[in-house]
Amino acid sequence: LALKGSNYAGLLERHRIHTKNVEHVVDSLRNERIEVRLVKRREYNEETVRWADAVISAGGDGTMLLAASKVFDKFKPVIGVNTDPERSEGHLCLPVRYTHSFPEALQKLYRGEFRWQWRQRIRLYLEGTGINPIPVDLHEQQLSQEQHSRAHINERFQDQRSDISGPHLLPVRALNEVFIGESLSSRYAMCSVLFRENFKSCKPSFKFSLHRASYYEISVDDGPWEKQKSSGLNVCTGTGSKAWSYNINKIAHQAVEEILKIAKKHGSLNMPLNTELVQKVTNDYNESLLYSPEEPKMFFSIREPIVNRVFSSSQQRGFSSKVCVRSRCWDACMVVDGGTSFEFNDGAIASIMIDTEDALCTVLLEE
Amino acid sequence: LALKGSNYAGLLERHRIHTKNVEHVVDSLRNERIEVRLVKRREYNEETVRWADAVISAGGDGTMLLAASKVFDKFKPVIGVNTDPERSEGHLCLPVRYTHSFPEALQKLYRGEFRWQWRQRIRLYLEGTGINPIPVDLHEQQLSQEQHSRAHINERFQDQRSDISGPHLLPVRALNEVFIGESLSSRYAMCSVLFRENFKSCKPSFKFSLHRASYYEISVDDGPWEKQKSSGLNVCTGTGSKAWSYNINKIAHQAVEEILKIAKKHGSLNMPLNTELVQKVTNDYNESLLYSPEEPKMFFSIREPIVNRVFSSSQQRGFSSKVCVRSRCWDACMVVDGGTSFEFNDGAIASIMIDTEDALCTVLLEE
Repeated sequence: LALKGSNYAGLLERHRIHTKNVEHVVDSLRNERIEVRLVKRREYNEETVRWADAVISAGGDGTMLLAASKVFDKFKPVIGVNTDPERSEGHLCLPVRYTHSFPEALQKLYRGEFRWQWRQRIRLYLEGTGINPIPVDLHEQQLSQEQHSRAHINERFQDQRSDISGPHLLPVRALNEVFIGESLSSRYAMCSVLFRENFKSCKPSFKFSLHRASYYEISVDDGPWEKQKSSGLNVCTGTGSKAWSYNINKIAHQAVEEILKIAKKHGSLNMPLNTELVQKVTNDYNESLLYSPEEPKMFFSIREPIVNRVFSSSQQRGFSSKVCVRSRCWDACMVVDGGTSFEFNDGAIASIMIDTEDALCTVLLEE
Repeated sequence: LALKGSNYAGLLERHRIHTKNVEHVVDSLRNERIEVRLVKRREYNEETVRWADAVISAGGDGTMLLAASKVFDKFKPVIGVNTDPERSEGHLCLPVRYTHSFPEALQKLYRGEFRWQWRQRIRLYLEGTGINPIPVDLHEQQLSQEQHSRAHINERFQDQRSDISGPHLLPVRALNEVFIGESLSSRYAMCSVLFRENFKSCKPSFKFSLHRASYYEISVDDGPWEKQKSSGLNVCTGTGSKAWSYNINKIAHQAVEEILKIAKKHGSLNMPLNTELVQKVTNDYNESLLYSPEEPKMFFSIREPIVNRVFSSSQQRGFSSKVCVRSRCWDACMVVDGGTSFEFNDGAIASIMIDTEDALCTVLLEE
């Protein structure tokens, strides 16, 4: 790692800090005689969730997403502790100071100095020919290249196998967003392995990425179907409006400045175009992209829409209660919270909406 | 296909039209006693290019990119005929009317009623530990899952194998753009095949996509190195400024309207905010993203930059003569014209620039 310019010492240090922070949280809980099961990613499953009265994630936002992904009970609190503040923004976690003084957080919980917060989540129905409702756990795939059984997934679908044509409610709830787009297909290549032996590379993996535009049809709030071609469609919650959706839609100071310059010229405006005005406009615009995690509405945005003779895009983004998408993709998928993936190929139809029964229960401590 | 809602008859018809158009071009050439070799994608190679005085691509823009990808001689003209006008914009091809009256184009060429156009292209140097200068042809990968020899690629590197630490000039020239970003890793999954048997799906492929931000460091025109995190970096030519780059950077009418509304409010502007003004500003802004294919300059844009405590982004886009990128990615690649891919992982350094010797020779017919 050091040869490559990576900071090995830094990685080790971050691991040390994380481990120490986890110990602190566990000790704080046990000191209050709370029974604690400490599980790692691979051991975290629905049985563990059933056993617990509450779930605490210790990591960054990604770990919180994983923790939430196995909780379907709207009365089971999930609390995030950010054990990696140098690296994670911790949007989904308690404020960073509780990482080092977790007993303070516990005291507030005991004294009722908090309120419940329900983060709305998105549910997905899938139908059409050739669909595959078996999700792929992307984190698992990364960790273990050979997986010979996924019994826990298999169970869930025992009763659904007989009828695969009707809409399936998928066994996931998106806390941040659902992203639909062409996945980048990969194929095993014998040739690459042959050549790599010559170059002393030991990586057996092989990834070929081809940016391909996604073709699909979309209907918002049961409106008319519209054909679209883009780099993908993002449908987020209030929680997710701060995440990838924000990065897709936010505008740069540089762009706002150019737009205002052009407007000034065209509109013959007497407008002092100073940095302060540009900054205010930029901030206001970007802030308008965010909304409360508790609002039962979704925000859809089309990423890099392609507009030409064939494809139009009446609205590039907006709020909605329901989004339906019919895939015309060759090799696409729906990715939930960056961690679970479903095939979404030509002919499949997804219906995307929020049901308040799916909300995730978290806490907001009083400050 | 029909069961899935795909338009089989439409696909067949497009193929018929394409075939007819190709015959028309070939016949027109042979009628002038020009010797023609008609090759398909897989047969198109550097020996064929060497044999030819000129290369004509018959297809859409993608076919033109493929044709150009094997031409390294700046005096070998490459001309595109758009045989699929319903589906391809044909930016890189002759105007559509010549598709059905190719003899007219030939006459103009004979009479000198044209000018040469040199489309500048980008070259790439790669260095650092663990790099793999063997490119992967993504179109080939799609067509044939088993490839046992890539002798033509092998040849090119015979002399370079002894020294893999110095900067390698890669055997490609980007006509549209180079895109650098995390590829979406895929792994073979035994489990997916087991379950799919139950669902009558016959696809042996398996793609798991995980949107992961790309980490890298960038230096523009030999300026200071800057750490960045984003959805990827796009560096294009004038030709490519109309392609993916345009879709990354263009702004929607809806966004301009919102920005001007906010500006009007903050600046207490007496500005009539009508659709006409918004449209003018939108069009001007979007047009400023385009420039001549013959200009020897590159346009870089950072896709969805992530700005927080750790990562900054002083400039989201701009013109440059040279861009250097050091990968801090886990599993990334550089994709040239959406068709050729190179690994670009932690420690690799790419230097990206235009050399006018690499220009592609095309023609602009007089109208």
